[in-house]
Amino acid sequence: MNLQKIHDFAIKTILDAGEQIRDSFSKELIIETKASANDLVTNIDRNIEQFFVDKIKNLDPSHKILGEEGMGDKIRSLDGPLWIIDPIDGTMNFIKQGRNFMISIGFFIDGAGKLGYLYDVMRDELIYAIRGEGAFLGKQPLGKLQPMTIEEAIIGINSSWVIPNGKINHEKITKLIKTVRGTRSYGSAAMEIALVVTGKLDAYLSMRLAPWDIGGGTVIAQEVGAAVSNLKGEPVNLLTQDTFLIANPSIHQVLLDQYIELKEEKQHSK
Amino acid sequence: MNLQKIHDFAIKTILDAGEQIRDSFSKELIIETKASANDLVTNIDRNIEQFFVDKIKNLDPSHKILGEEGMGDKIRSLDGPLWIIDPIDGTMNFIKQGRNFMISIGFFIDGAGKLGYLYDVMRDELIYAIRGEGAFLGKQPLGKLQPMTIEEAIIGINSSWVIPNGKINHEKITKLIKTVRGTRSYGSAAMEIALVVTGKLDAYLSMRLAPWDIGGGTVIAQEVGAAVSNLKGEPVNLLTQDTFLIANPSIHQVLLDQYIELKEEKQHSK
Repeated sequence: MNLQKIHDFAIKTILDAGEQIRDSFSKELIIETKASANDLVTNIDRNIEQFFVDKIKNLDPSHKILGEEGMGDKIRSLDGPLWIIDPIDGTMNFIKQGRNFMISIGFFIDGAGKLGYLYDVMRDELIYAIRGEGAFLGKQPLGKLQPMTIEEAIIGINSSWVIPNGKINHEKITKLIKTVRGTRSYGSAAMEIALVVTGKLDAYLSMRLAPWDIGGGTVIAQEVGAAVSNLKGEPVNLLTQDTFLIANPSIHQVLLDQYIELKEEKQHSK
Repeated sequence: MNLQKIHDFAIKTILDAGEQIRDSFSKELIIETKASANDLVTNIDRNIEQFFVDKIKNLDPSHKILGEEGMGDKIRSLDGPLWIIDPIDGTMNFIKQGRNFMISIGFFIDGAGKLGYLYDVMRDELIYAIRGEGAFLGKQPLGKLQPMTIEEAIIGINSSWVIPNGKINHEKITKLIKTVRGTRSYGSAAMEIALVVTGKLDAYLSMRLAPWDIGGGTVIAQEVGAAVSNLKGEPVNLLTQDTFLIANPSIHQVLLDQYIELKEEKQHSK
């Protein structure tokens, strides 16, 4: 498989999609809710995912596609060539702010990340990685993340996980917030991952992310030395929703050991 | 006083300062701490404030200047023409991210806001207001903020005020976070104020802001109908550090009444 050819295709398709999204602000936005009142989707999310699906199937019909909006395939295994796509990560920001949302794309072969893309559509800023060849911001190579301490860290975390909640011990998170230099919350997992791989944040954690939120980012993480796991410290699973942590490698284990304590999952219950 | 002439001067000076800041990324950044290890200042903050002071004193030596870095005057009253200046709001973002920081400028006469400017340097995006003539994003007039409910709101709040703290009842903030659609935290008060006046956030609150954090924003707030107060609901005082709330007018009083409860200030203590 010619990875460079697939990479050239991906870049062109992502930039085209970005242009379509920027143009969409002059057109009608149809907003629907999904699982909950705050889980939104628009006609643009769907159109852009369909655009990616059509382009990929045209490139090579054997490639499988896992997309947030379900326009791709039913994926039950990571075998073979697989695209993991979030056409608009941060849909609420897209609707309300017209900014601070990302296109996130990962390309995997037999579960191994080969190509990753995080595109800030409104800044027209593309971060990408080719497995083994490094990561880039535009044409600029991204260096490895540098050693640091937890006290110097700026952490991406949503306030939902700071208040008492069913998923994580919020008292340890309180201790974390008192320890670090600062926290941020941007409302787009892909944007927070993009900030971590470029050293603009030092960690980002979430209780509940889907494969399309993290697919592209995990490939870029490998190339800059960012550590990635779920909140138990296990490798991420690209087939299911799970907890998620990406961090500067100096503080990844510190976060897991000292500040993150998942609550017992209820057994035998739905 | 010819306000239009002062406005033209302000725009030109702010855009010049922005260019200097963008150019500064290729030069040496000298970082010092101020009151605490996390309160940072750079040579660029100081140089840019000095640039504003020189320009303003050249325009009219009778204008007073209150600046974050102390290059201006000692201000004990709001009498006469007064500039309130933050050369770089979000210094930690400036240092670490090279983005997500703002120039914030307000021009007041006898304490009444006449001109306000919030400039996102890296996006090259200027929001400004002329008292009585409206607010603008670039050349585009900004509309009045539209009616909404607290459940639909996205709120800017730093996690420091979500955990137990000495300033505010965090249990009511917990209730707020469970009620609203979402929260964000950007690490620059001026940026969060800019997002509120453009309807991209619906409120922003902080326990501890200085006049230069809010001076420019309060003038713009007037023109778009954003409600501004301290967290007791009192008018903001431009001479001292205080708590701060800016919100869509539909939810400003709801926030004060139902979700914000300041702790008793200790009397007779430093």
